[in-house]
Amino acid sequence: MNMVELIEKKKNKLALTKEEIGQWIDDYCHNLIPDYQVSALLMAIVLNGMTDDEIFNLTEAMLHSGKVLDLSKIVGVKCDKHSTGGVGDKTSLALCPMVASLGVKVAKMSGRGLGFTGGTLDKLESIPGMQVILTPEQFINNVNEIGMAIIGQSDELVIADKKLYALRDVTGTVDSIPLIASSIMSKKLAAGSDCILLDVKYGNGAFMHTKDDAIKLAKTMVRIGEHFGKDVRAEITSMNQPLGYAIGNILEVKEAVNTLRGNGPKDFVELCLSSGATMLLQAGICTTREEAIKKLQDSIDSGKALATFRQFVIAQGGDISYIDDLNKFPQAMYVHEVKSMKAGYISHIDTMALGMISMRLGAGREKKSDIIDPTAGIVLCKKLGDKVAKGDVLLTMYTEHPNTSELLSESLNAFDFSNEEITAPKVVESLVSYDKNNKDFMIVEE
Amino acid sequence: MNMVELIEKKKNKLALTKEEIGQWIDDYCHNLIPDYQVSALLMAIVLNGMTDDEIFNLTEAMLHSGKVLDLSKIVGVKCDKHSTGGVGDKTSLALCPMVASLGVKVAKMSGRGLGFTGGTLDKLESIPGMQVILTPEQFINNVNEIGMAIIGQSDELVIADKKLYALRDVTGTVDSIPLIASSIMSKKLAAGSDCILLDVKYGNGAFMHTKDDAIKLAKTMVRIGEHFGKDVRAEITSMNQPLGYAIGNILEVKEAVNTLRGNGPKDFVELCLSSGATMLLQAGICTTREEAIKKLQDSIDSGKALATFRQFVIAQGGDISYIDDLNKFPQAMYVHEVKSMKAGYISHIDTMALGMISMRLGAGREKKSDIIDPTAGIVLCKKLGDKVAKGDVLLTMYTEHPNTSELLSESLNAFDFSNEEITAPKVVESLVSYDKNNKDFMIVEE
Repeated sequence: MNMVELIEKKKNKLALTKEEIGQWIDDYCHNLIPDYQVSALLMAIVLNGMTDDEIFNLTEAMLHSGKVLDLSKIVGVKCDKHSTGGVGDKTSLALCPMVASLGVKVAKMSGRGLGFTGGTLDKLESIPGMQVILTPEQFINNVNEIGMAIIGQSDELVIADKKLYALRDVTGTVDSIPLIASSIMSKKLAAGSDCILLDVKYGNGAFMHTKDDAIKLAKTMVRIGEHFGKDVRAEITSMNQPLGYAIGNILEVKEAVNTLRGNGPKDFVELCLSSGATMLLQAGICTTREEAIKKLQDSIDSGKALATFRQFVIAQGGDISYIDDLNKFPQAMYVHEVKSMKAGYISHIDTMALGMISMRLGAGREKKSDIIDPTAGIVLCKKLGDKVAKGDVLLTMYTEHPNTSELLSESLNAFDFSNEEITAPKVVESLVSYDKNNKDFMIVEE
Repeated sequence: MNMVELIEKKKNKLALTKEEIGQWIDDYCHNLIPDYQVSALLMAIVLNGMTDDEIFNLTEAMLHSGKVLDLSKIVGVKCDKHSTGGVGDKTSLALCPMVASLGVKVAKMSGRGLGFTGGTLDKLESIPGMQVILTPEQFINNVNEIGMAIIGQSDELVIADKKLYALRDVTGTVDSIPLIASSIMSKKLAAGSDCILLDVKYGNGAFMHTKDDAIKLAKTMVRIGEHFGKDVRAEITSMNQPLGYAIGNILEVKEAVNTLRGNGPKDFVELCLSSGATMLLQAGICTTREEAIKKLQDSIDSGKALATFRQFVIAQGGDISYIDDLNKFPQAMYVHEVKSMKAGYISHIDTMALGMISMRLGAGREKKSDIIDPTAGIVLCKKLGDKVAKGDVLLTMYTEHPNTSELLSESLNAFDFSNEEITAPKVVESLVSYDKNNKDFMIVEE
């Protein structure tokens, strides 16, 4: 293969063949193509796009660039979930035990946080003793026995994605729907589940800024799933404010546990019930959405979901006494209340700014090598639509850093106010799936 | 400067500032930016273009990435010329002595051939003894005394271009008018002349395939010249057949010398007279085109141009006996006549194919490190519009390679025939210049 001809082809808006894409990915994984040729090709893809067939072929080439997990020893329907990332997104912590307690098998691989987004692994590791590396046997046994397990993404899966993502990150070629979709879907397909629920977030605290882009990405990923014979559905959810109130690792674990105890934030519960219902339908455990939501609510009310979460923590070595008594978790040295200088209804929250502030308080990573402070973060007291009086506490900051005056004023600037009443927005806006009979997408507005 | 932000900007079709472009070129020359970031930016430039201001700033940054020649010690108007490259293009060999013999000062830097195009330096070096490396003093003295000197492009000029071109060559980012124009013009500006005549070739044997693209490139370069206070004019010339009859180094030197003796091919003479007239007007030596063409014709008829060429060869160490007796030049071991299998009027010549065949006969380089055979090449017997009978010789191949059967049949395929008479096309089609008073381009059709 002549890499220059391949670049020229994409530059001239021609579609690459399956063989060309396969060879490119294979050669790149074997270090036979220099980065400077791949980055030129990536930029041509970002600007000229890819056809559906190219996206399928890229996903397939990436999928086979590493090991593919065999989950056949797990009894039942394996259902995976993936969120495109946001601020305060602790969904997996509550959702997975909810659906697992109802018979869905969740064999999940998760990632770490970077920049303004957190990562499920970091949140789990803030529970003392919790292990995110299991042997394949342990992983499969845990899912069979408890219904769920969450481990770190294996380095042996989708080797191409690691290399490509590192290059995209430093060459301005991240924001391409074909590249994002094939990256996510190759990892999800390699992880071996039967069904995949995607949470595609949009808004000022998400990678996709507009709902249109989120729907485009969702459709692309659902089509990839259809192509590979998997039931993939996607929820389009708003990230125009943090999910729930807590941002930061221990803070979010506490909020997730409280949600499993029946005391969850309204928006977070809404998302867990909606996502859970879709997963129960995908797994064939329920036949209607109403039935599914009722069962999920019951799994919380009866304590079944919390019991599953406890088993999961214990099975992965976590110290369950922290879950049973959330006050045992350490607290950050400095706790600052940020009080509003204005009055009114909150009309806008700069969600990404809050994510970045939380990162700078110690809760996240600017670079991959940074070390996280599990106690750090933000707990909001007010959200979109809430009425605020001057002097009301907007949020509380938790940190080990003594100097946070700059972050204090930045966090104040993250809020806009209106004199008129504002309706709090919904979280789940649409559900995208593929109708095999009509060979077309189904988009249901919630 | 954050290089990723710069790439993102161009990706999002925003213009880069003078400071951003300057820093990029400077950092890249000092190896502070990796190739993979530069190639992503180059692809974004290829696909999203550049504004005039960006092109000026890129040209300026490249110009100042190395030394700028000081030709102030040369008495008279210094006039440079540049061709965008074609097949059989030996123009500098005849044109420079023609205009130099009439008082234009030609202090010229030339390049080597690559791929289907030849290079003036290779042609000069096929004259035994000819040196293309002179000290700055020799270079300036020769121009003052003889009116011309031609040397190799100095490595110290426009350092950025060498690095950028090498990267563009292997990343599919060559065909961009902003990048081509700034590359050519930064080199021409660094070479220090007062006026520049550009020969922008288009057609099936040129880098620009359409006349529209050639005019766009010409306008861009003329505007760059205007911006930097130089009189730059461009001729749009057809490269839908080789220029003259000879392709290959010694073969082209012979044709150029014969042209200076008054026996030049019609199309080649037409180009030399037109380009020469423009240079005489630029240098202020003539005031009308008619007067200039008459003087140029006279420089051939009187032997003045040939005398200047002889002085030039002698001054650069060439063995003048070869020029005086062209039969002294060595001839290739194998000489193959290629005879037409069809009859009719030649309606199409695949010029690039002939350039590549000539290269493979030994006259050119596939890679920069290849060694040229000065005796190799092609001499055409027929050109566009010529009437051909079956069995007529179309061309003669000169080579040291014993096996040329494949090239023989390929060269036959380079010709198409028509039953109807075809008019031989003109070479010079348009002249592009900038009218300072009207602040607009002037395009004169020849």
